[in-house]
Amino acid sequence: MATRWERAQRLDEEDPLAHVRKHFALPDDVCYLDGNSLGALPRGVGDRVREVVDEGWGKQLIRGWDGAGWWEAPERIGDRIGGLLGAAAGQTVVGETTTVQIFNALVAAARLRPDRELIVTDSDHFPTDRYLAASVARMLGKRLLLVPVAEAPALLRERAAEIAVLALPAVDFRTGELWPLRELTAEAHGAGAVVMWDLCHAVGAMPVDLDAAEVDVAVGCSYKFLSGGPGAPAFIYVAERHHSRLDLPLTGWTGHAEPFAMAAEYQPAPGIARARVGTPHVLSLLALEAALAVFDLVELAAVRAKSVALGNFLIECAESELVPLGFEVVTPCDESRRGSQVTLRHPQAYELVRLLAGRGVIGDSRPPNLLRFGLNALYVSYQDVHRAVQELAALAR
Amino acid sequence: MATRWERAQRLDEEDPLAHVRKHFALPDDVCYLDGNSLGALPRGVGDRVREVVDEGWGKQLIRGWDGAGWWEAPERIGDRIGGLLGAAAGQTVVGETTTVQIFNALVAAARLRPDRELIVTDSDHFPTDRYLAASVARMLGKRLLLVPVAEAPALLRERAAEIAVLALPAVDFRTGELWPLRELTAEAHGAGAVVMWDLCHAVGAMPVDLDAAEVDVAVGCSYKFLSGGPGAPAFIYVAERHHSRLDLPLTGWTGHAEPFAMAAEYQPAPGIARARVGTPHVLSLLALEAALAVFDLVELAAVRAKSVALGNFLIECAESELVPLGFEVVTPCDESRRGSQVTLRHPQAYELVRLLAGRGVIGDSRPPNLLRFGLNALYVSYQDVHRAVQELAALAR
Repeated sequence: MATRWERAQRLDEEDPLAHVRKHFALPDDVCYLDGNSLGALPRGVGDRVREVVDEGWGKQLIRGWDGAGWWEAPERIGDRIGGLLGAAAGQTVVGETTTVQIFNALVAAARLRPDRELIVTDSDHFPTDRYLAASVARMLGKRLLLVPVAEAPALLRERAAEIAVLALPAVDFRTGELWPLRELTAEAHGAGAVVMWDLCHAVGAMPVDLDAAEVDVAVGCSYKFLSGGPGAPAFIYVAERHHSRLDLPLTGWTGHAEPFAMAAEYQPAPGIARARVGTPHVLSLLALEAALAVFDLVELAAVRAKSVALGNFLIECAESELVPLGFEVVTPCDESRRGSQVTLRHPQAYELVRLLAGRGVIGDSRPPNLLRFGLNALYVSYQDVHRAVQELAALAR
Repeated sequence: MATRWERAQRLDEEDPLAHVRKHFALPDDVCYLDGNSLGALPRGVGDRVREVVDEGWGKQLIRGWDGAGWWEAPERIGDRIGGLLGAAAGQTVVGETTTVQIFNALVAAARLRPDRELIVTDSDHFPTDRYLAASVARMLGKRLLLVPVAEAPALLRERAAEIAVLALPAVDFRTGELWPLRELTAEAHGAGAVVMWDLCHAVGAMPVDLDAAEVDVAVGCSYKFLSGGPGAPAFIYVAERHHSRLDLPLTGWTGHAEPFAMAAEYQPAPGIARARVGTPHVLSLLALEAALAVFDLVELAAVRAKSVALGNFLIECAESELVPLGFEVVTPCDESRRGSQVTLRHPQAYELVRLLAGRGVIGDSRPPNLLRFGLNALYVSYQDVHRAVQELAALAR
């Protein structure tokens, strides 16, 4: 019977996405399982950024806004990301930080249901999402209710008339649990609520069908599975049916119907362009655009299939090698309930992650006791997974 | 008697800042008078950005947040810009777009005077500032009053008890008029109001003494006279005396007192770090940091002196060559009332600016009939100014 290491080798040989790894500039000695925090560098980004600086900024100067396509970048790249989210063109804009997009989207979502007083969000949501929900509720005179995602359906039934917005993560950032986006969206709509999804840990890792699921509003970052670079710009998606009523608080001049008229009154642009906020961060934006080229080489269904297989293999290895050493597998073993990471629990999580990095295996930890391993199917191999578990077992023994 | 062209040559020969121009990668055939919209490219930025992508992102990966100084960048670069604004360290943070910083700062400023109901801003302010003042007033249940800057002192006297915030531009973006920041700040304080300055057209062009003038809050962009690149990040300054009460609406995790604790409740960081919003756009931020190196070579007093002299020379040329052709000089001739641009009025402003660009002279236009010429003393020469006026006269004749 083949050893697990031999199986890892065979799985890598048979991997239909193995050819994609060479498009990333990963150091040879690193086993990188933190692409759910910061994706690896796609080759080609460095050349492109250099070109934007020297040829665009340096030579075109102010004319680059028209001549080099900078002005249109937020919507052009937005549509590219929308294509990875099952969103038809004209509903997605890229720019700003995730924090800003969450704020802008949450206010606008709540304003779609002015007669309802509750903003509901996941009690285990990423801190920024929770902090901003509190800030928005305070500014709009709404009440905030925190509830575990699993209890949201019951809440929707019990308080159907009160809930303005249900704001949820597609994937739990700590445990990697994948929530049923389509079903929860339908249940929120059944209660008359607007639903807002945070896709930070889903975009680029799996197919997401925003239009088909009739999602109202979504936001996400581009520096995790999209590998857009450190602090790469975030995106906002708003379903076309809401555009004409979309009342966003961050009313910058670039979202005006006629930005260059510099009119006295704010008149939002007719389509998704009204979700433009400030002057686009061109260097970060065009680096992201270059990074997205790798998605031309793959189908998201294949990315998801490999990510699931990597997760299954990691869990299998962990149950055999790590659970006997005091680790617990936190992520659901049911692959339909799993995002693209596997999380383990161990009392020395922080210290183990630090020691692992010293051995070239990079994951991360989240308080109080979680070890997270991101599985970006574009560049993580089964041998990476095997190596990570072996090194971790050696450290914990 | 020397011709004006000969004078331009002599002024350039005697210019103590002439040596700085070689630190910018300006195309030989371009006369660039639009640095008040997008500053020219400082040499060295391209190499630095390439290094950040290849060595930082590519090799350090997630470890770059600590190992490459990315996490501290908003405060480190903030202090560098603060140094150009007369701000002691620990009061300035860089990041986000100007739109976002204006929103965040305006809400926080208004919350410093919860018992007052008026937000007052310049009726000729840049559109984003006006649109956001309206948005903030609406969200906070305040009233917005628009008033020309020149009438602000009278308003402060008449309605002293009602004004929470006075939000003004240091320099009018259309006319280039420089407002008396210190005097207006003192008058606002005399009325018990908080004052917020938009420094977009001042930062990097002249000394600004925020601490000495006892300014409360200020924001600005970094892509004009700071030459930080297209869409470079904005900054926010908050006087230290307000930090403990500073109640900002954009409560992202990076501004938390213990960001990595990921606590349930938002607890703002003790100092200016609470003004951090989202995950920093590292590529754009570090490009800006590299661009700022040129300010190590100069004193802002010398920059201002040359900018004033360039403006005087432009106005002299314009009065001689352009006024007889139907142009009007809009910018105050009194140099103490002038920022670092000269604005002309002509019915065909838009078309003339377009034709000028075809001749390699780059300025810009603002509706309905203004031509703007930015005078960045770090790279604009007296011969540039002379050439621009000659070309414009030739087009208008």
